[in-house]
Amino acid sequence: MPETSEQSAASGRRFDTVLIANRGEIAARIERACHELGLKTVAICSEADRQAPYIKTADHFLCIGPSTAGKSYLNQDAILLAARLTGAGAIHPGYGFLSENAAFADAIEKAGLTFIGPTASSIATMGDKIAAKRAMMAAGVPCVPGPDSALPDDPAAIERIALEIGYPVIVKASGGGGGRGMRVVPKADQLHEAIALTREEARKAFGSPSLYMEKFLQHPRHIEIQVLCDDHRNAVWLGHRDCSMQRRHQKVVEEAPAPGIAPEIIQPVGMACVEACRQIGYRGVGTFEFLYEDGAFYFIEMNTRLQVEHPVTEMTSGVDIVQAQIRAAQGDVLDLAQSDVTCDGHSFECRINAEDPDTFLPSAGVVTHLALPQGPGIRVDTHIHPGYRVSPYYDSLIAKLIVHAPTRAKAMARMCEALAGTEIEGIATNIPFLRALFEDHAFARGETDIHYLEQWLKLRRTAA
Amino acid sequence: MPETSEQSAASGRRFDTVLIANRGEIAARIERACHELGLKTVAICSEADRQAPYIKTADHFLCIGPSTAGKSYLNQDAILLAARLTGAGAIHPGYGFLSENAAFADAIEKAGLTFIGPTASSIATMGDKIAAKRAMMAAGVPCVPGPDSALPDDPAAIERIALEIGYPVIVKASGGGGGRGMRVVPKADQLHEAIALTREEARKAFGSPSLYMEKFLQHPRHIEIQVLCDDHRNAVWLGHRDCSMQRRHQKVVEEAPAPGIAPEIIQPVGMACVEACRQIGYRGVGTFEFLYEDGAFYFIEMNTRLQVEHPVTEMTSGVDIVQAQIRAAQGDVLDLAQSDVTCDGHSFECRINAEDPDTFLPSAGVVTHLALPQGPGIRVDTHIHPGYRVSPYYDSLIAKLIVHAPTRAKAMARMCEALAGTEIEGIATNIPFLRALFEDHAFARGETDIHYLEQWLKLRRTAA
Repeated sequence: MPETSEQSAASGRRFDTVLIANRGEIAARIERACHELGLKTVAICSEADRQAPYIKTADHFLCIGPSTAGKSYLNQDAILLAARLTGAGAIHPGYGFLSENAAFADAIEKAGLTFIGPTASSIATMGDKIAAKRAMMAAGVPCVPGPDSALPDDPAAIERIALEIGYPVIVKASGGGGGRGMRVVPKADQLHEAIALTREEARKAFGSPSLYMEKFLQHPRHIEIQVLCDDHRNAVWLGHRDCSMQRRHQKVVEEAPAPGIAPEIIQPVGMACVEACRQIGYRGVGTFEFLYEDGAFYFIEMNTRLQVEHPVTEMTSGVDIVQAQIRAAQGDVLDLAQSDVTCDGHSFECRINAEDPDTFLPSAGVVTHLALPQGPGIRVDTHIHPGYRVSPYYDSLIAKLIVHAPTRAKAMARMCEALAGTEIEGIATNIPFLRALFEDHAFARGETDIHYLEQWLKLRRTAA
Repeated sequence: MPETSEQSAASGRRFDTVLIANRGEIAARIERACHELGLKTVAICSEADRQAPYIKTADHFLCIGPSTAGKSYLNQDAILLAARLTGAGAIHPGYGFLSENAAFADAIEKAGLTFIGPTASSIATMGDKIAAKRAMMAAGVPCVPGPDSALPDDPAAIERIALEIGYPVIVKASGGGGGRGMRVVPKADQLHEAIALTREEARKAFGSPSLYMEKFLQHPRHIEIQVLCDDHRNAVWLGHRDCSMQRRHQKVVEEAPAPGIAPEIIQPVGMACVEACRQIGYRGVGTFEFLYEDGAFYFIEMNTRLQVEHPVTEMTSGVDIVQAQIRAAQGDVLDLAQSDVTCDGHSFECRINAEDPDTFLPSAGVVTHLALPQGPGIRVDTHIHPGYRVSPYYDSLIAKLIVHAPTRAKAMARMCEALAGTEIEGIATNIPFLRALFEDHAFARGETDIHYLEQWLKLRRTAA
């Protein structure tokens, strides 16, 4: 029986102060959402981030450790202590760092505080690729062909599985992610060597030799579905995004909606995701990631947290995803039915990174000049300002440039003009690369897949 | 018979370069709109504005005169010459300066260029209060009780008119505006002195002693309706705004939609405005301004140009008003039917002025530090940047802070957070005053009128 909001409130879920266990643009984003909801905030930082603007505007702040993330943003004990010191009733993990760490979520709840995210058990299930696939298949979410269990040790049995799926197949570490611990096997004679190598990598990188096998898709697009759930088994999906523009498995440009996918094709997938959320008792926001090829969707993983690219969905759906996430954590009943969800116009996000636009090597230093674009349909999420020192300790994302317009073509024109109006001096950024990309004709026609950007870069290098 | 777009294109209306005959935030706004439409731009500036950012990003630019507006932004010959020199096919006047100057519009069209705005004759009609009122009454737009002609000279006839309208009445110069050349007459025994004084003022300020008389409303709100028309007699209204928050007849905060006005009350007024546009053959964007009291609307004037507060309507309607205006000037057929127009959520705009927050005296100087708010539902239109010199030559508007959220209460919370996140150093701004205003309870309840802000300021001064 679904819990009611009264029971939830009675269980002490309400909080009036949120500790933000993250840094950079997402810390600033979460802080604003809290303040708009009337909540107080605690900012934490490492030594390297003491000058960050969200530190100044937080209601409380604490420097919790040295610049190395392992000793600050990943230091669970220090973060829990900071929450106790400041009286924070909840912790928002942002993305990256501890955001998908089930043990951290568990420790927060055991300390009597609220983790702004799903339960530790949801995180654990979705962190295990095989368990996740099983849960998805049970809810009718389309998955990549392949068994929903770890590969056996028996070579002959593995051969039979590969034959049944059909080559090419891909072998992945059960506990892997982010492009590590996986290997494509084009033909049968390469199978056993690939298995051996990947098992060894998996053991070293993820502490377990467990592998699974799936069909390998040749030219898929990366399509994802944003969900929003309360703690009372209400769930909606807020539309889909295309994040195919990737370099080394890192998303560079995201858009909503995914171009050229008819509503009747995506609709049942979205509803299956909602069903999966209900079945696993999911709470808060999450993203179902799919590969999409020849009109079919294949689930790859669920991210049990806020995503970098959430703004494109905010622009098209009108829903403030961070505020909704916080309210769900407070036990509020979702005030949105699926029929209320609309997708209006088109939105793009460019990740602006402090990196060389040709070599992609990170660039640290002081921002000496900054001019950001503005006007209708333009949004910039950033934490940098003139005089800000970009440190070499963390990832190179320094700003997200988001545009919205009635059509995809108009949104592209708006992004071109917005990129032209963005001036960042003192450090190198990938803006020249993004500007070139937004003049690409195949991209303008929506004819891309997850390999497109790498090929485009190769062609450019050859031409140069 | 409405002209077709083919005829219009054949008549040479198309242009590929726009000269922007304005400065400040609106010059930057227009430049972006042109670039997004694939048009080239010419920026013009006075000596004082040579460092403005839109100068750098324009395709061409020209310094056309000294800092005094009369010798630069109001210098029609210099502007026309600049257009000829740069090959600009159209001139966008922005707001203020020459934007409602019928002679300027006429000179542009005579030079074979396009004026981005209505015809000179529309501007002239709407610039004459009596002619405008007659046109409005003919179209069924509700007007303030009073004759639609100039007052006669005969004192007894004037007495009869005043009695028929009912005291209090207001006497206004036919050619006046902006709060000048008008006088309230509370009682009959003050009538003749008021007439004599106002006639004298009208003669001096506007070159004509012509006066008219209307009913004086005690506690009205200022409500306005945004229209958008093409050159083929297609017209729509894009919703309404409340601009009651005024200090010395200058709008300070604007919002869309106007709170507490039921759709069935505003709907016929909007449709009458559309009908008026059709009858006078209006082209481009315009605003019908009304006083609103006790559920009734009273037309006061039409602004035949883009308005400072157009962004709040852009946020709620999703229409890019500046782009639509330019496309209308090109002869494009309006691609929007009235049934396509929606009003989504609520939007506020704060005018950020370089002025002392207590005395409201203008503040000139160099911006030494600038941090602008960001995130979902936040838009800043500005031309300033760190190092920018705010000159004493022009009006004190340095930025417009615009927010959008699903409800009025959420939009107010967002504005509070956005104002808190706006840091401008080196010059004084009215931000402290705006922050206090956004904490006012009567404003939060929407219980204001055009006198509210002045009264609120008086109370604050008394309390201090």
